[in-house]
Amino acid sequence: MAHQFKNDLAGFKADLEGIAIEENPALVKQKSRDFFWYSPVLKRQLDHVTADLIVTPKDEAEVVRIMKAAFAHDVPITARGGGTGNYGQAMPLSGGAVLNLAELNKVKSITPGSVVAETGAIVAQIDKETRAHSQQELRMHPSTANTASIGGFVAGGSGGVGSIRWGGLRNLGNVIRLRVVTAEAEPRTLDLTGWDLHKAVHAYGTNGVITEVEMPLTAAYDWVDVLVGFDDWMTAVRYADELAHADGLLLKEIAPIAAPVPHDYFLRHQKFIRREQSVVVLMVAPQSMDAFLAFTQRAKGEVLIRYDQASPADLKGLPPAFELCWNHTTLRALRVDPSITYLQTLYSPPDHIEKIETMTRIFGDEVPGHLEFNRFDGRIAASGLSLVRFTTEARLEEIIRIHEDHGCPIFNPHRYTLEEGGMKQTDEIQLAFKKEVDPKGLLNPGKMIAWEDPNYDYRSQKTYLFPGLQQAS
Amino acid sequence: MAHQFKNDLAGFKADLEGIAIEENPALVKQKSRDFFWYSPVLKRQLDHVTADLIVTPKDEAEVVRIMKAAFAHDVPITARGGGTGNYGQAMPLSGGAVLNLAELNKVKSITPGSVVAETGAIVAQIDKETRAHSQQELRMHPSTANTASIGGFVAGGSGGVGSIRWGGLRNLGNVIRLRVVTAEAEPRTLDLTGWDLHKAVHAYGTNGVITEVEMPLTAAYDWVDVLVGFDDWMTAVRYADELAHADGLLLKEIAPIAAPVPHDYFLRHQKFIRREQSVVVLMVAPQSMDAFLAFTQRAKGEVLIRYDQASPADLKGLPPAFELCWNHTTLRALRVDPSITYLQTLYSPPDHIEKIETMTRIFGDEVPGHLEFNRFDGRIAASGLSLVRFTTEARLEEIIRIHEDHGCPIFNPHRYTLEEGGMKQTDEIQLAFKKEVDPKGLLNPGKMIAWEDPNYDYRSQKTYLFPGLQQAS
Repeated sequence: MAHQFKNDLAGFKADLEGIAIEENPALVKQKSRDFFWYSPVLKRQLDHVTADLIVTPKDEAEVVRIMKAAFAHDVPITARGGGTGNYGQAMPLSGGAVLNLAELNKVKSITPGSVVAETGAIVAQIDKETRAHSQQELRMHPSTANTASIGGFVAGGSGGVGSIRWGGLRNLGNVIRLRVVTAEAEPRTLDLTGWDLHKAVHAYGTNGVITEVEMPLTAAYDWVDVLVGFDDWMTAVRYADELAHADGLLLKEIAPIAAPVPHDYFLRHQKFIRREQSVVVLMVAPQSMDAFLAFTQRAKGEVLIRYDQASPADLKGLPPAFELCWNHTTLRALRVDPSITYLQTLYSPPDHIEKIETMTRIFGDEVPGHLEFNRFDGRIAASGLSLVRFTTEARLEEIIRIHEDHGCPIFNPHRYTLEEGGMKQTDEIQLAFKKEVDPKGLLNPGKMIAWEDPNYDYRSQKTYLFPGLQQAS
Repeated sequence: MAHQFKNDLAGFKADLEGIAIEENPALVKQKSRDFFWYSPVLKRQLDHVTADLIVTPKDEAEVVRIMKAAFAHDVPITARGGGTGNYGQAMPLSGGAVLNLAELNKVKSITPGSVVAETGAIVAQIDKETRAHSQQELRMHPSTANTASIGGFVAGGSGGVGSIRWGGLRNLGNVIRLRVVTAEAEPRTLDLTGWDLHKAVHAYGTNGVITEVEMPLTAAYDWVDVLVGFDDWMTAVRYADELAHADGLLLKEIAPIAAPVPHDYFLRHQKFIRREQSVVVLMVAPQSMDAFLAFTQRAKGEVLIRYDQASPADLKGLPPAFELCWNHTTLRALRVDPSITYLQTLYSPPDHIEKIETMTRIFGDEVPGHLEFNRFDGRIAASGLSLVRFTTEARLEEIIRIHEDHGCPIFNPHRYTLEEGGMKQTDEIQLAFKKEVDPKGLLNPGKMIAWEDPNYDYRSQKTYLFPGLQQAS
């Protein structure tokens, strides 16, 4: 169904009087990018990508006007929140307009257990308001909480800090409601709940423009950031796994990271870490600290720093522990060694520890371990965000293949499509919904293979190349 | 180490001036009992048990005085909270004094994530105060929350409503601190934390008199009580299991109960339930209701009643859903059919569903299914509280043996000792601690086999009979 868009920008702009539009090429290019450059593959493929203009609505009514104009004038629309994605989720492969939702940023209501916020509200700001209101916070947040928008997290993320307790965004109940504006001649606003949420969660904005989210809240605590060191990587992994299985300990984050990554790349924490130490990064509820310390002592873990008892001098300049985790681990490594990239692996139970051990044995320091423990359909699993000391794209593909051959599926962060980064098959629910709400395929073109090329063969081992992108490059 | 106690009551009383003592035999007998009569075996063995007197301290200082007097005059002391145990936990097998802790009932402090309470505080009263203070509640409570004391729950219970989220009381972190008074010449007060808690949690008061507890709190919600019906028992079981694995749904209780138990024995709910329906009793957080209903609809469960939308007429006289669960299921059955008793089974993952199916196939309506889903070392498991249509003690033993032969361990509720109701082996930690804090063995004599008969053979298949009890009977 991929087709050329008329992209009648003059007509589009004429319909948008009173709505903020930015056309300065440098600013447009800046707002057309995310953290795609973590991947050398995406960096090569997407570096030139830019929209024709940025349009910034102030409210949902303006979003509706923009979508009506986009349909009338055949202008591709790529929705953007904080731009903290890693796979070009918000990059406009066919040009057109980037829909900057940053000004839809209000927290609208807070009740016991839930918050309603506009799509562009910054995640950390929501937590700040819900905490002040009633000592509540979001169940999970990305490591980019301070810059990511809630709508972008839901549309482009999968989980994060807190997933050790609550699983992922895809799990029923972790998003309560999404309000989306359709890409039709007369745009509709739809409220999605229950199973219908799967139509728009993690769809990269291809299935309606999210304008409002309702998210569950949980109790907020003064989480204690702790780093625990082990001289052996697999001992650190087993400690993390057992800790994750300790039902009475309330933790928000459990991330083992293999030596020498913590010492070499966590520069602000370097003085606390010996180079041969693998580190488990943790966030512990205050009421669980006694029990956590008893557990850690028995496991012979060395508490390298606990933020609640560190001196002001030691704390000075230290980022919060969650900014050592998830894709911030990759970011910190990249800042020191620009050749580093990463993978996303699922080590599913019950033999997740054995799989991790096998990958460690095969790759050693070429693929230093970084795990995020989380719940996966009621079971403790480990998501790998291993670093990769990148040499060639061919070797990267080989590393991926070896993982998959050993039963460790890769959610490939070197691909910009939903399918290649995900389940490698058509999502029939998302495809059917797209046919209904975006008949012209205006929303974030090129990201849903099932829409662009229904006959695509996912077993081909080849990267999907969006025709619009090929043409542009 | 079992020995005769001098039990010098005159000397004991003389030391307790100003402390309330009750000697009326009818009242003493009443306070010497619990719900042991759920078991026909315990009913036969324990029905005659009574203390010589009841002593009721007002505060910890009086507890210390009582323990000093007990040591001096060799008087057995059996601590008692609300008397809601089911295995004679608080029944004084050697006579002496029942230590009634009901007046140590104050909530002392509440912080985000924890509460400090005196041992005799009623569980529901703690929840009421923590909820009013800061919308918090205990992580778990027994179905007897309205009468059970917190100290009794910790000393004699294992888990309850909330264990689906938090596991059991034995899990590190689910009790923060216990303060105990020792049974020595000069009684000490000890604060136990971390691994040391295992010395006194679920020790039936054999290892020090608990005077104060510090417990973790979690967010309190207006839990929605829901009953979901299925025409097939195993369909109900699988629904419950999948629901328990749904990480994004916040539930506090998941209890499938086989037909015809719900219809026949839940008399106040009878009009909502067809006789052939197995029922899953649930408590759902309001913010999870949408997702829960979507899940239930897909599973083809019939919502029989949800309390949040029931009419005042329907709600009139209905007990809360949790009073259909745990041992309240047994209680409701017993009220209708006094011949009913029950079992406690662990169906451990990963093949817990298959084990349940096998037991259902073997026993049918002789052992109607009742499961409490909970977390067990990080995994979803099912605790069986099956009802038993009792015929003879021999058949009951046979039913237990068949369960164990099929890999379904029984925590025998027809035994009054810690070991026979538990792991069927010596708890070295508890035994070592008892030697330290209760050198005369005054605390709840007869409940810890390891103390009474170190050479006892747990493989003997025979019931342990406490000499003190034999002598009395």
